[in-house]
Amino acid sequence: MGDNTFGTKFKITSFGESHGKVVGVVIDGTPAGLEFDLNFIQNELEKRKPGQSNFTTTRKEQDKIKILSGIFNNNTTGAPICLIIENKDINSSYYEKYKELLRPSHVDYGALQRFGGYADYRGSGRFSGRITAGFVMAGAVAKLILNKYNISIFAYTKSIRNIEDSKDYNIDDLETIIQKREKSPVRALDLELSEKMEKEIEIAKKAKDSVGGTISCIINNVPPGIGGPLFNSLESNISKGIFSIPAIKGIEFGAGFKASTMMGSEHNDPWIIKNGKIKASKNDSGGIIGGLSTGMPILFTVAIKPTPSIGIIQKTVNIKRMIEEEIKIEGRSDPCILPRAVVIVESIAAIVILDYLLIEGKIPSVLEN
Amino acid sequence: MGDNTFGTKFKITSFGESHGKVVGVVIDGTPAGLEFDLNFIQNELEKRKPGQSNFTTTRKEQDKIKILSGIFNNNTTGAPICLIIENKDINSSYYEKYKELLRPSHVDYGALQRFGGYADYRGSGRFSGRITAGFVMAGAVAKLILNKYNISIFAYTKSIRNIEDSKDYNIDDLETIIQKREKSPVRALDLELSEKMEKEIEIAKKAKDSVGGTISCIINNVPPGIGGPLFNSLESNISKGIFSIPAIKGIEFGAGFKASTMMGSEHNDPWIIKNGKIKASKNDSGGIIGGLSTGMPILFTVAIKPTPSIGIIQKTVNIKRMIEEEIKIEGRSDPCILPRAVVIVESIAAIVILDYLLIEGKIPSVLEN
Amino acid sequence: MGDNTFGTKFKITSFGESHGKVVGVVIDGTPAGLEFDLNFIQNELEKRKPGQSNFTTTRKEQDKIKILSGIFNNNTTGAPICLIIENKDINSSYYEKYKELLRPSHVDYGALQRFGGYADYRGSGRFSGRITAGFVMAGAVAKLILNKYNISIFAYTKSIRNIEDSKDYNIDDLETIIQKREKSPVRALDLELSEKMEKEIEIAKKAKDSVGGTISCIINNVPPGIGGPLFNSLESNISKGIFSIPAIKGIEFGAGFKASTMMGSEHNDPWIIKNGKIKASKNDSGGIIGGLSTGMPILFTVAIKPTPSIGIIQKTVNIKRMIEEEIKIEGRSDPCILPRAVVIVESIAAIVILDYLLIEGKIPSVLEN
Amino acid sequence: MGDNTFGTKFKITSFGESHGKVVGVVIDGTPAGLEFDLNFIQNELEKRKPGQSNFTTTRKEQDKIKILSGIFNNNTTGAPICLIIENKDINSSYYEKYKELLRPSHVDYGALQRFGGYADYRGSGRFSGRITAGFVMAGAVAKLILNKYNISIFAYTKSIRNIEDSKDYNIDDLETIIQKREKSPVRALDLELSEKMEKEIEIAKKAKDSVGGTISCIINNVPPGIGGPLFNSLESNISKGIFSIPAIKGIEFGAGFKASTMMGSEHNDPWIIKNGKIKASKNDSGGIIGGLSTGMPILFTVAIKPTPSIGIIQKTVNIKRMIEEEIKIEGRSDPCILPRAVVIVESIAAIVILDYLLIEGKIPSVLEN
Repeated sequence: MGDNTFGTKFKITSFGESHGKVVGVVIDGTPAGLEFDLNFIQNELEKRKPGQSNFTTTRKEQDKIKILSGIFNNNTTGAPICLIIENKDINSSYYEKYKELLRPSHVDYGALQRFGGYADYRGSGRFSGRITAGFVMAGAVAKLILNKYNISIFAYTKSIRNIEDSKDYNIDDLETIIQKREKSPVRALDLELSEKMEKEIEIAKKAKDSVGGTISCIINNVPPGIGGPLFNSLESNISKGIFSIPAIKGIEFGAGFKASTMMGSEHNDPWIIKNGKIKASKNDSGGIIGGLSTGMPILFTVAIKPTPSIGIIQKTVNIKRMIEEEIKIEGRSDPCILPRAVVIVESIAAIVILDYLLIEGKIPSVLEN
Repeated sequence: MGDNTFGTKFKITSFGESHGKVVGVVIDGTPAGLEFDLNFIQNELEKRKPGQSNFTTTRKEQDKIKILSGIFNNNTTGAPICLIIENKDINSSYYEKYKELLRPSHVDYGALQRFGGYADYRGSGRFSGRITAGFVMAGAVAKLILNKYNISIFAYTKSIRNIEDSKDYNIDDLETIIQKREKSPVRALDLELSEKMEKEIEIAKKAKDSVGGTISCIINNVPPGIGGPLFNSLESNISKGIFSIPAIKGIEFGAGFKASTMMGSEHNDPWIIKNGKIKASKNDSGGIIGGLSTGMPILFTVAIKPTPSIGIIQKTVNIKRMIEEEIKIEGRSDPCILPRAVVIVESIAAIVILDYLLIEGKIPSVLEN
Repeated sequence: MGDNTFGTKFKITSFGESHGKVVGVVIDGTPAGLEFDLNFIQNELEKRKPGQSNFTTTRKEQDKIKILSGIFNNNTTGAPICLIIENKDINSSYYEKYKELLRPSHVDYGALQRFGGYADYRGSGRFSGRITAGFVMAGAVAKLILNKYNISIFAYTKSIRNIEDSKDYNIDDLETIIQKREKSPVRALDLELSEKMEKEIEIAKKAKDSVGGTISCIINNVPPGIGGPLFNSLESNISKGIFSIPAIKGIEFGAGFKASTMMGSEHNDPWIIKNGKIKASKNDSGGIIGGLSTGMPILFTVAIKPTPSIGIIQKTVNIKRMIEEEIKIEGRSDPCILPRAVVIVESIAAIVILDYLLIEGKIPSVLEN
Repeated sequence: MGDNTFGTKFKITSFGESHGKVVGVVIDGTPAGLEFDLNFIQNELEKRKPGQSNFTTTRKEQDKIKILSGIFNNNTTGAPICLIIENKDINSSYYEKYKELLRPSHVDYGALQRFGGYADYRGSGRFSGRITAGFVMAGAVAKLILNKYNISIFAYTKSIRNIEDSKDYNIDDLETIIQKREKSPVRALDLELSEKMEKEIEIAKKAKDSVGGTISCIINNVPPGIGGPLFNSLESNISKGIFSIPAIKGIEFGAGFKASTMMGSEHNDPWIIKNGKIKASKNDSGGIIGGLSTGMPILFTVAIKPTPSIGIIQKTVNIKRMIEEEIKIEGRSDPCILPRAVVIVESIAAIVILDYLLIEGKIPSVLEN
């Protein structure tokens, strides 16, 4: 339990609000002896920074990371690392009217029940996507360690609305594929499809509407046998983490929902020997069988709903006066959050995988340099 | 962590193997003072019992529940409840050959890495679907309590292969809809579609092949505000539980993956006032926004892969001899596990929802009679 | 949380009641590949068996262990191990009158509040010392593993009433010192003091009264650096486990309460080099500094109160009639529980230490034979 | 697990180092709607502030609390509260030499093993008593809530060296007894004994030595039935928390170690009826039986060792050169930490008790004003 703490041996605790002083994270269980590459972490955070392109919010934030604890002589010490970014471009007056008007498909009504009207509503407060900056900072620390063990994590925009890239990708060369993706403002891999996706967002933006899509994630080089049966399955812990990202509506591993339409003879992945090693000749299992890694790339795809904040008139309820009213949301929300969500999905994956490897003793508590 | 324990205040611990002496569960945190309706629990378990129809395994088990602890004067006492069923129809000799031959899309290879060849391989041992009998017993206890609070949980087979029932159902009258479902051997709700689904299974069975499908689950009357932001979101904990069921490849809430193709104006659920209460006029959110319940029915759908054990010749690897060989699996596996999985999905949902309500203090530690 | 589950990677779940069918334990996280020496485990359990001597309860139980799960080909498999013993010598009629009369210094009143009168009161039900049989079975499994890593755990009766053995012992030769202890019916190490202790118990028994005492525990060969700062300190987790044993009223590490009367110059343990290794020249720290092991033997002592069930007339309250009455408890309780509690203290220590070593990756998930 | 997170529903996460930028704490699970009385919290923190008297360290810190998150309109919101204090009076050069010389009865050697030499050694880094400032801030928040429910927590210095106050105190009037205690520079309650204790510290200080002592804690008005059998016993969770405070060597509840010398007839607390309520006529049980509260005051006493940093020459080991050397520690350590530790003990008690009451649903997630 605990709304805001996640993980067992690599454990993160999130704090902060959209319009409070800071958004932050405490990262506990980082092995000692990791050179703390703040540039890398900052660079990861840039990928979810607001204002990267026309498709993102107009909120302007530097998102400059401050280290409050856990680093000494530029190394991790084994102590909890506290990282924060400050909130500066805040215009909260705007949200005053939403104290009464429930925004459709926003958390307002549930939050009112759960927190009795005390929750910070400014910029959605604790429910804001801005909170995920903490996930990205923690995920970047996890990646720094996984990279040392040759485990790479890569996500990309697979679809926006009905524009879908159904090709399979591999990430043997992480650097190159990242560079490729960063050329697309929506973080797609096929530049032709990227343009079509961009068009979808532009159409939505013009109409003061929004769009959703899917993000795929590939994790390479996880050794076979990681995970567990039942409640400790790879899917259980990855999905638990992924659904902490706002706006996620589904997750599937390998062939996923398509697997439900297949015959066993079609879905089963035959085992083969390749270069003296056991592999599967295809990967509809998505690198996980029985909750355990198979040694094949771990593949999963998540569904993201369209941003609920739209400038179109919607029906809703004024909860103070208990009457139906209309609402038109004029905030600074992204018409499509996918471009910025790609790195968040990667971050959660990194956090979960590192936790397993630490628990299983595959990565030691003190790193050798 | 812990492969085999799940939940916070309502906590279950699973034990047993497919071909060991028993399959069992310890249920901790049940409120005291619940009349222990063993008939109800046994009846729930019948729904996942092998040998119910032509579509299920030919293994014959009585699955008669024995109470080892926790019940006194036919009431729960607040002490941990241990329930077991015995394994009787065991033919393990059959599995000897799979010590060497990796079954495609079975856990064999990962399990070998994780447990070093010591795992009980007979009938897939700890990875067998038979383990989920423990989930059903625990879920039935959870349902007994939820029913007292008017919370009902209902799942059904939504699709098998490409035969899909895309209608929306509500479960205002739980008894009637259960009766309706139990008339379908595949536990579908539309009898016409049920027949088509049955045909799909028959075709697969004749071809010694298998099929998958999807199961939808509806949870009614969860009060608004249950769940949490981030790691304690309803989706996080439901999905963590659901992915402990073998063969699940995906989960989606509300409109799910379809939401990723929608515009915000289309997906957003307008708030309305109905009978003096706040409701949404539609429920693409699936009863959850921002990780919190909205008071609308909670809706989710899971994807289940086709049974990996098929009688068709497949390519695979002999791991002792490290050569590629062929395999033909002649076991007693179900050609389609969905009919028996419906009650398992319900059980996990019941366990998760009860845990939340106990933690939030919505259900007391001692029930009033 | 969870009343009945303890540990992180080596996790035990307790179930059963004093006068129910069984007392049992599920042991999760045992490494695979351990030869399951049931004789050793049964032998450990004999040390807490009722009816060993004149000083223990007259209840007669075989306490024959049954394995329900987790063992295959006489090895652990990595699956949860469920072990039970049956309750046979039950005379519950006796306890009927305590439904109304609160037994002084018994849990009756608190249990009534917590479980609303539904708790199994027979033989103190879930609060009975008999529940600790599960700790001993789990502790014996832990010892089997620790022994392979040369870590030995040994406890003995240090005092009964005011008869105290204040000598320091070491356990370089575990077998020999166990044999020595087992010659004393109270499990003391100094046979002269043992006789005096026995006399104290005899006096109490004759007077239908009871006595308490202290038990010391020594853990050898824990490598330095095990534990953690703050909430994961060795003392934190050992004490959490120890206080789950009924009747424990205190715990101290190393010099313990005596340390509070010492000067720093007197208490501090100087570091020395011995045979090329860093040691302390004395061990008032009890092998733990700053929550971490020092490599010196871990030493702790626990205080055990006199058995509350006594045959002498006591004042109490009849809770149904809400009047003061008198009570005389004529059960089968031990006049002194220390002789049987020695192995329970060892068991908790073994469980905690093994959990640390698994988490820290010092003991692998699959044992090499 | 997790070195730095504690609690279930009221969960605190500690971060920071003695000579890093800050010491901080994230407090998760605080009910919404609590007026955030920062003055009260700051005032609590003053009680452990350095430089209060001649008996404490000469380090000068303002210890001014900064709120980073979780408070809105001066109320708690249900979001995690992050509080920090800054480290300003830092003189780290001093600690350079201890990189080689192991300080006797300091954590240096264990920390080296656990963190591989990467730990921040300045001012003992993460193992410094300064970290407990986070406990006090969190404990003060817990007290704010407990006070609303009339539950009061009070600790005092019971002994220093052999000067012991063996009187029993009650805290019916919390304000008055706090005022009384605050008149004693060592936070004792008997001013005559206080003077003797002060003398003991002065003697030690002059000799560049140090002294230990004991602190007693009284918790009033916890309703009966709080806690749990076994691993969730009140003693289990209180002791787990208490041993996270550096320098604690023992804990006892009620009569504690003295109980081990008593007869049952002497130790048992008779139940009586007083003003129509069930009480015990004495309280050797310390308000806890069978792991559950009895409704009587909860009493426990902790043993604190003398500060290990002393200016007297001690033998030790130079770990780089692996030779024995001498060491003389000239830092700013307190000759006796008890006066400042009193509020830390109270804070841990408050955190644990509030967590129970939230879990048991005795205090709601949203406070009514």
